[in-house]
Amino acid sequence: MRVSELVEESGVPLATIKYYLREGLLPPGTAMTATQAEYGEQHLHRLRVIRALTGAAGLPVQQAKAVLALIDSPDGDLFDALGQAVAALPPYAVRDPHDDYPRARAVIHRLGQVYDPRYAGVAQLEHALMAAEQAGLPISDARIDAYGRHLHAMAEFDLAQMPTSAPLDGAEAGAPASAAIEYAVIGTALYEPVILALRRLAHQDVAAGLLDVD
Amino acid sequence: MRVSELVEESGVPLATIKYYLREGLLPPGTAMTATQAEYGEQHLHRLRVIRALTGAAGLPVQQAKAVLALIDSPDGDLFDALGQAVAALPPYAVRDPHDDYPRARAVIHRLGQVYDPRYAGVAQLEHALMAAEQAGLPISDARIDAYGRHLHAMAEFDLAQMPTSAPLDGAEAGAPASAAIEYAVIGTALYEPVILALRRLAHQDVAAGLLDVD
Repeated sequence: MRVSELVEESGVPLATIKYYLREGLLPPGTAMTATQAEYGEQHLHRLRVIRALTGAAGLPVQQAKAVLALIDSPDGDLFDALGQAVAALPPYAVRDPHDDYPRARAVIHRLGQVYDPRYAGVAQLEHALMAAEQAGLPISDARIDAYGRHLHAMAEFDLAQMPTSAPLDGAEAGAPASAAIEYAVIGTALYEPVILALRRLAHQDVAAGLLDVD
Repeated sequence: MRVSELVEESGVPLATIKYYLREGLLPPGTAMTATQAEYGEQHLHRLRVIRALTGAAGLPVQQAKAVLALIDSPDGDLFDALGQAVAALPPYAVRDPHDDYPRARAVIHRLGQVYDPRYAGVAQLEHALMAAEQAGLPISDARIDAYGRHLHAMAEFDLAQMPTSAPLDGAEAGAPASAAIEYAVIGTALYEPVILALRRLAHQDVAAGLLDVD
């Protein structure tokens, strides 16, 4: 398709598409003449991914570019690549090499989960637990157990849906890993807001039941 | 206790405490002499609440003040007051009076939940669902069912812990409602980051299992 059709199909303005091309977020189309290029499904797909990263996840364009680079050329094994890609999304917990995250480690051990101590999620959990403690409302073991059980079940659902086939972009080596990383990043960016909204609405439903409002 | 002890006990610097007193977030102590006031447990407690709102929830001071006003003087019945207080926390979904949130309503009906259509959580869910749709990854019914079931169970746990006794601040009329609203607001501000971190770590654990990393 021509760039005008790409604009129409994607809903992304021409100036924005040109900007993404210039910045290297969107790969160039196939040159047909000196002034015309042909775009395909992989460009439409990539535009949706960019939109998810810069829109829902709120990433600055340069940060989105870094995440796209991880999707295109996964670094290390899939486990590391998944961790790195998701760690590129906010919130950014400051990692302190002298902190061994005692609160987070205690919680993860309690839940009996496998984890990489360098993973950003560990620092993120430590900060969240510390904030609750400082507010005088430390998270109880009962709450950790309840949350942990349900979130693990949700994660099992998520991973069961992880694509293992090659992504639209082609069949180069590492393509299955690319699709998995893309799914993990996009799923984190797009589904976290859905989860928080659903949780607040679930509270309203439970409160209505307790208070007999209907 | 004297203000110096309040500083020590709370860990909040004197200048910050004076600022909160001036802005009316912290009620004045009992005047003992022209230059000395006596502070109590309720001041310590209030400082923790302020810290949760301005720290973990990231609210500007004036917004935190508005939430504290809702805690102190609940408006309407408990169901409305809970909704209003939680809606004062980010993210702020823009509510459009001409939008009837078709995606959010469909999802809430699917889950069979009671809800107030004016509640900010509805607009929040609509935006999150629309972002996923625009990224070409609409949320499937299977995902809604899985997330909805587990988040409802977590909400039941949360509400079962909701305090029904009077808060530390005293026994004025409406005090039980104040404690409940405070719990809802603080719980939302402090527990949402814990939930997101636990979810990312649960993904890592499930991925490790799938990939046989250990």
